Amino acid sequence: MKIAIAVYDNFTALDAIGPYEVLGRLPDAEVVFVGCEKRVFRTDMGSLALVAGASFADVRSADVLVVPGGPGTRAMTTDRPLLDWVRTIHPTTQWTTSVCTGSLVLAAAGVLKGVDAVTHWGAMPELAALGANPVEERVVVRGKIVTAAGVSAGIDMALTLAARIAGEEVAKAIQLGIEYDPQPPFDSGSARKASPATMQLIVEQLARQMEAANAGTSAA
Amino acid sequence: MKIAIAVYDNFTALDAIGPYEVLGRLPDAEVVFVGCEKRVFRTDMGSLALVAGASFADVRSADVLVVPGGPGTRAMTTDRPLLDWVRTIHPTTQWTTSVCTGSLVLAAAGVLKGVDAVTHWGAMPELAALGANPVEERVVVRGKIVTAAGVSAGIDMALTLAARIAGEEVAKAIQLGIEYDPQPPFDSGSARKASPATMQLIVEQLARQMEAANAGTSAA
Repeated sequence: MKIAIAVYDNFTALDAIGPYEVLGRLPDAEVVFVGCEKRVFRTDMGSLALVAGASFADVRSADVLVVPGGPGTRAMTTDRPLLDWVRTIHPTTQWTTSVCTGSLVLAAAGVLKGVDAVTHWGAMPELAALGANPVEERVVVRGKIVTAAGVSAGIDMALTLAARIAGEEVAKAIQLGIEYDPQPPFDSGSARKASPATMQLIVEQLARQMEAANAGTSAA
Repeated sequence: MKIAIAVYDNFTALDAIGPYEVLGRLPDAEVVFVGCEKRVFRTDMGSLALVAGASFADVRSADVLVVPGGPGTRAMTTDRPLLDWVRTIHPTTQWTTSVCTGSLVLAAAGVLKGVDAVTHWGAMPELAALGANPVEERVVVRGKIVTAAGVSAGIDMALTLAARIAGEEVAKAIQLGIEYDPQPPFDSGSARKASPATMQLIVEQLARQMEAANAGTSAA
């Protein structure tokens, strides 16, 4: 079970690490972080860097593809090497998946034309503009394409996928292994539940983050 | 607000990345991943490597210390450089925190003598043996010491801490930013809820993982 997780500059760490922590525990899982080159990639907040153990040229097929999101996706939706790689890998997969704005990359690669999909709550219009059919659910499974909502939703997505791949008992054991019995101290994790003040605060922060991430790039 | 996250070989990625994704979004947060040396550290499943941007010698104080867990902690509870570093940093912090078996490191460093604390459900006897007072809660706040249960609990811990540091409104905005509105497909994330079959499966897997992580080390 070869699991390829795409990385690029300014991706969001938890988008990739949530699914990694779940899918990496599947029996016979072999996870590889894949970037345009075999090098270190810096995440959106700048203070964390991850190693891509393989390049796009090294990896030409996968059982599971995971595309994380992040401010860097806006540059990535016009990034020829990444989009070409997604187009190469997707026909070889059993499951093609994304977390957060990773679905914008899948859509830009032409994988989500008219397909129900989800993304971060702040990027639903962009997902529609790229030809997908936005659906407000935490995890959307359509055929072999599985998309997750923002950042932390990748954990729920990966557990859903783990059950499809290895059965519910294995998925439950993984959930227990990572003690995923969430108890958020607040109930402010979705756009439907958050207050206008909370929404205002985070919209401003995301805008600053996006600006910082795209400074010096030719991103749309 | 300087946030130091300890890394070492065979730590569990999500233990560190959950708090990183939350605390890194605090206003004026400056996060640094700190290892015994400024180099790449491999996580417990082997396929992911993170860069420590600073060494123990570089970082001599922090506002927040985060110690993640993982199979590597068993070697770390006798690792003189890490324990000495924790003993150096702890008196300088506003908050000293751990996720999962990271609390075994805090305990081995002498920080948790007689203090209420939590760890991964599978490691509670070890925590007691190291002099802490194990408490079965997801997040335990005692003075400036905050410990979290297994792996994914670091997200709940960090949101709790974010509210103490920057106020509830900021913490809620961060929760919305990472769309942390968890919807696990199963309710099997705690030792109290999981079935005996699930427990059996994961205990075997964790034992194999621990064995693999400690192969060739002198871990207890």
